[in-house]
Amino acid sequence: MQARLDQCQALVQTCFDAVLSPLGDTNVEAGMRYALQGGKRLRALLVVESAALHEIPSIQSVWSAAAIEAMHAYSLVHDDLPCMDDDDLRRGQPTVHKRWDEATAVLVGDALQSLSFELLSRPEVAESSQIRVDLLASLARASGAQGMVLGQAQDIAAETSEAPLDLMAITELQANKTGALIEWSACAGAILGQASPAPLRAYAKAIGLAFQIQDDVLDVIGDTDKTGKAVGKDQDAGKATFVSLLGLSGAQGRAAKLVDEACAALDPYGNRAEPLRDIARFVISRET
Amino acid sequence: MQARLDQCQALVQTCFDAVLSPLGDTNVEAGMRYALQGGKRLRALLVVESAALHEIPSIQSVWSAAAIEAMHAYSLVHDDLPCMDDDDLRRGQPTVHKRWDEATAVLVGDALQSLSFELLSRPEVAESSQIRVDLLASLARASGAQGMVLGQAQDIAAETSEAPLDLMAITELQANKTGALIEWSACAGAILGQASPAPLRAYAKAIGLAFQIQDDVLDVIGDTDKTGKAVGKDQDAGKATFVSLLGLSGAQGRAAKLVDEACAALDPYGNRAEPLRDIARFVISRET
Repeated sequence: MQARLDQCQALVQTCFDAVLSPLGDTNVEAGMRYALQGGKRLRALLVVESAALHEIPSIQSVWSAAAIEAMHAYSLVHDDLPCMDDDDLRRGQPTVHKRWDEATAVLVGDALQSLSFELLSRPEVAESSQIRVDLLASLARASGAQGMVLGQAQDIAAETSEAPLDLMAITELQANKTGALIEWSACAGAILGQASPAPLRAYAKAIGLAFQIQDDVLDVIGDTDKTGKAVGKDQDAGKATFVSLLGLSGAQGRAAKLVDEACAALDPYGNRAEPLRDIARFVISRET
Repeated sequence: MQARLDQCQALVQTCFDAVLSPLGDTNVEAGMRYALQGGKRLRALLVVESAALHEIPSIQSVWSAAAIEAMHAYSLVHDDLPCMDDDDLRRGQPTVHKRWDEATAVLVGDALQSLSFELLSRPEVAESSQIRVDLLASLARASGAQGMVLGQAQDIAAETSEAPLDLMAITELQANKTGALIEWSACAGAILGQASPAPLRAYAKAIGLAFQIQDDVLDVIGDTDKTGKAVGKDQDAGKATFVSLLGLSGAQGRAAKLVDEACAALDPYGNRAEPLRDIARFVISRET
């Protein structure tokens, strides 16, 4: 799995290099390059593998993969801001507002969102402009006030609320906050292949939730050296998490069940979907 | 002119109402509606009039007009943040971070940017998906790290720099910060009409600069009751402006000359471009 993620990383980097100015004259451009470094590229791999399932070569799907990684990177830069989650460390490095300043971090995030849509509007994404519009429209919805931003707002509301969230509320929050972009990534291959996204959507909903449960598990049993971010933070803040609500082994059991569901959702694709099933299993075995 | 702007306002509001949830359940949705209220709708009118010049009816062009107003509104919300320009008042009302808080303002801006691309990807924008992709691609470029965000970064760098900007540097800064979206607005009609955007681009470059000169003039001679924002701010901050560099009457003369250039750039369209020439003249006569 790591080899595939590394390969994906190399591919999306070629896209970033093609569209970002090589010198990074301003702090904003330097900050964009910085924020785009070192992620797992899980969303990119979901795009590439779901596209491969529909016989779209990676040299094409990588442009959509780069677009979702830019969108994800923007969300992290803004989420780390002092007025949001106030994190100093991300992917093992100082966050953008620590490395530069808050204004630069706001602008870097803003520009990465623009970059995401710019990447997705390029001719390399798909010869058909209808397919590009479909991808653009669905990404705009997934990232906006009915998707990722809604989840971030729900997360912030939860932090200031008296009563901790229950399981249903936290599941909905995470379906928005991290689920929406993961779902877009898995469905992108179906859009590129002009196929029904239904099986991939069911798969993505399950792994999106499993991914977040594993994040909560790693916040308890993880290692800052490996996760590249502070651990124990949610627990210390008395925040409701899947672990606080289900217990550690309960959460791990739930995540494993979700991975089984995700794999089963791909039955219509048979053995050809094995790379996507590998990703599902990776989601709960990862240590970072 | 005010009647046309008001009509434009009513039209774009129907688009916002169609895509924003009616209740505004969360602070983010309420903040989005709030931030979309009460602008001049100058950019929207540029889209509608440049489209009319290419025989695109306003019922169609208004979707592109709404998209650029959402993009503009996002830029204002983020620009007003304490870590950026730190403004308490906008369009005569408390800024989003004063009315709610900084986290909400970051998310409202983020969601308005998504909304802009969502609006522009809708089928109502143009039957041809190629035209929609062309509009999306050019807006992504105009708003990003080579356009508006670059101008904002240059503006912030200038504030912390020892030496005030010279005329060339401030002209370049403004061409990015406010010029890029104004240029997109005027060129949108040509893209919708599949015509050459060259005359509209020359027109837009001139009025974009005239617009910013008038902003600097209003910062000196304007009235907070009319402008809806604090005046004298740039002067107090010792910031280089067109007025500090050219003097008040020098700046006003330069703006008037730019309006003449803008009107002349529309010669290929003859009298049919009179509505756009009216906008050019309005840009330097406005008091808000």
